[in-house]
Amino acid sequence: MTTKANNPALRSWVEIPQNSDFPIQNLPFGIFKTEYMDAGAGVAIGEHVLDLTYLYENGFLDGLGLPAGVFNQKYLNDFMELGKKSTRAVRERLSELLSVDNDELSGNKAARELALIPMAEVEMLMPVRVPNYTDFYSSEQHAYNVGCMFRDPENALMPNWKHIPVGYHGRASSIVVSGTDFHRPKGQTKADDATMPSFGPCRLLDFELEMAFITCKENGLGESVSIDKAGDYIFGFVLLNDWSARDIQKWEYVPLGPFLAKSFASHVSPWIVTMDALEPFRVAGPNQDPEVLDYLKTDGDFHYDLDLQVGIQPADSEETVVCNSNFKHMYWNVQQQVAHHTVNGCNLQVGDMYGSGTISGPTPEAYGSMLELAWRGTKPLTLNDGSERKFIMDGDTVIMRGHAEKDGVRIGFGEVKATVLPAK
Amino acid sequence: MTTKANNPALRSWVEIPQNSDFPIQNLPFGIFKTEYMDAGAGVAIGEHVLDLTYLYENGFLDGLGLPAGVFNQKYLNDFMELGKKSTRAVRERLSELLSVDNDELSGNKAARELALIPMAEVEMLMPVRVPNYTDFYSSEQHAYNVGCMFRDPENALMPNWKHIPVGYHGRASSIVVSGTDFHRPKGQTKADDATMPSFGPCRLLDFELEMAFITCKENGLGESVSIDKAGDYIFGFVLLNDWSARDIQKWEYVPLGPFLAKSFASHVSPWIVTMDALEPFRVAGPNQDPEVLDYLKTDGDFHYDLDLQVGIQPADSEETVVCNSNFKHMYWNVQQQVAHHTVNGCNLQVGDMYGSGTISGPTPEAYGSMLELAWRGTKPLTLNDGSERKFIMDGDTVIMRGHAEKDGVRIGFGEVKATVLPAK
Repeated sequence: MTTKANNPALRSWVEIPQNSDFPIQNLPFGIFKTEYMDAGAGVAIGEHVLDLTYLYENGFLDGLGLPAGVFNQKYLNDFMELGKKSTRAVRERLSELLSVDNDELSGNKAARELALIPMAEVEMLMPVRVPNYTDFYSSEQHAYNVGCMFRDPENALMPNWKHIPVGYHGRASSIVVSGTDFHRPKGQTKADDATMPSFGPCRLLDFELEMAFITCKENGLGESVSIDKAGDYIFGFVLLNDWSARDIQKWEYVPLGPFLAKSFASHVSPWIVTMDALEPFRVAGPNQDPEVLDYLKTDGDFHYDLDLQVGIQPADSEETVVCNSNFKHMYWNVQQQVAHHTVNGCNLQVGDMYGSGTISGPTPEAYGSMLELAWRGTKPLTLNDGSERKFIMDGDTVIMRGHAEKDGVRIGFGEVKATVLPAK
Repeated sequence: MTTKANNPALRSWVEIPQNSDFPIQNLPFGIFKTEYMDAGAGVAIGEHVLDLTYLYENGFLDGLGLPAGVFNQKYLNDFMELGKKSTRAVRERLSELLSVDNDELSGNKAARELALIPMAEVEMLMPVRVPNYTDFYSSEQHAYNVGCMFRDPENALMPNWKHIPVGYHGRASSIVVSGTDFHRPKGQTKADDATMPSFGPCRLLDFELEMAFITCKENGLGESVSIDKAGDYIFGFVLLNDWSARDIQKWEYVPLGPFLAKSFASHVSPWIVTMDALEPFRVAGPNQDPEVLDYLKTDGDFHYDLDLQVGIQPADSEETVVCNSNFKHMYWNVQQQVAHHTVNGCNLQVGDMYGSGTISGPTPEAYGSMLELAWRGTKPLTLNDGSERKFIMDGDTVIMRGHAEKDGVRIGFGEVKATVLPAK
């Protein structure tokens, strides 16, 4: 729903640099710590983090019925579990406190200086504890591209693909926050012409450009969430880099799906941008043909017009943007994903993460993985420093960014960034 | 390792009925509550539950360095996280307290009566919070049977099967404790001769007889657990009924694996039988040919000789045992599963659950699912009440039991039991 906090005319007394992802209309939630403070909840505003623990403890959030200690925690799960009515009220109140028309905080120098911490002084942590992680496969262009490469263009999509928002259970433990370095995974692979598999570092390391939504409400085991209620269960979105070891995946994934090819690391951006903040950027999705079953039918705009970008920065070199995509290029929307996931009675939990699947747009520069961008290694990319890439090399940093823009308001996600260290 | 508590000559002052699963040599851990008490940790002994919170608070566990409140919790995670040295010391101390040679508890009538609660008066709860759930596919007979049905007997096993302990990520949120009733799931299916899928209650509901191990130690992300250290990460085992909706599975599972066909409910037995208690029942596994890669090579006996049984009890009728299998009929052992799961750097967490996959023995009565027992519906089973079963019907209760026996000592798991209610 559109709220007062979304008003494009709102201005904050906090200085917001041009092209900032975090104007007063955004107010995404995250968990941060500093040299002097343990983990706690904050909200991004311009180039600062607003310390919610401080605001709570000093009466700025009085009257909202918030339980003591709800912000002074390692994760946002307990806060999200309060429900949308409460979390929305907090965002509205923060919007008020940060507005140029309000001097409660801006007029109190001591409080203002304690509540606003420069981003450069904080370390962002995982925003949520993730009880369950599911990854969907909801971009038609991506499914088509992969189908073309591994089967044939005539039968690129599996027969179930336009009837089911296909998904699979992923590994929750290895989801980490942006900036967490990791090592190239090792594993079993088998060359097409080899009789036996061999063991060693992955040779075809890839990124996958995804968005993920995070849930804030539980349905009981056995209770389905109808598609018109699905939005109540979604708190917001983060950027997700769902790293994939293509050679490990190829050898292991038939018949039970991807396993170790995905479970070595998945990186997320630290700020959860709320569904409320993204409300103005909803757009219609594609016409779904064949018609979907009743429980998947939606009426309204449930896609998001969100520009997405991937850059590769080799060690000691400059970044090259290799992909420009958009979240609107999905076939299945998040409402359909929730309705499908729970139609068998599966219970969502607070903090669950649900990946979109690789977001590939209709043109080659909008493909969301190296597998597609370099077309299985047949069309290497040339980076700005002259080096070539078929897949990701040791020392490369992969950076994903995302933002929406309309009526002069830019709502962004910041970035999700990770450097690949050599295999141990 | 074999400990004092495993001594077959030990006798308890607590009366242990003949054929009890819970003699003094077992001492499995669980979480229980009563009409008068909140959830807390207990140990099974004969037909009683020994209340660990009571013992701790009244000094019976002094000197073990246990943190306050470690038993007075909803889950065993914090207890298991203390490490095997601590949890083993607790089991040894309980063995001592329950032994006929010790009168600290037996000689104190008031304490004895408060510490020992009849099983009939407790409700068993989920023993652990499950951060991650993986299901393996490690019985050769099961993989062969499924391959014969859906492909052909000449190529029943996939090429990777004897090189990789194949597994996939499952849904953690829908794992529930024995006795939790559930509804037949609904979902999308497509008949072979239909052009479009349809929606409705699952028609081919199946059980899967499995064991699951539960982890008690974390490896850091990026750190592999070598096969000789894998045992340090395993606390113990439970019985697992990994319910499967075969018709939903068939339509959804290519290419990313089982999803809604499995995530509506998985039941576990409430008592975690420790690896220590199962130590005397270790046996050699099958010869693995072709030779496995180095990181999967084990030296020693890492299989378990554990009789397993499945019964079906229709509503208002008697139970029929339909399957007698044994946990020793696995191709891959749990050490290999841990080594493989972490070889890419995937991090285990405390409380994780790892299913064996359906445990099918070499003879038809040892097959661990209805799919196999009734051979895809072609050989219906006749139950004691004369009714026939190709799959599981509404009102049926499925009961799984498991125990090992040697030198007059029987170490059992109790049972995992669940009744299928009609689709909502």
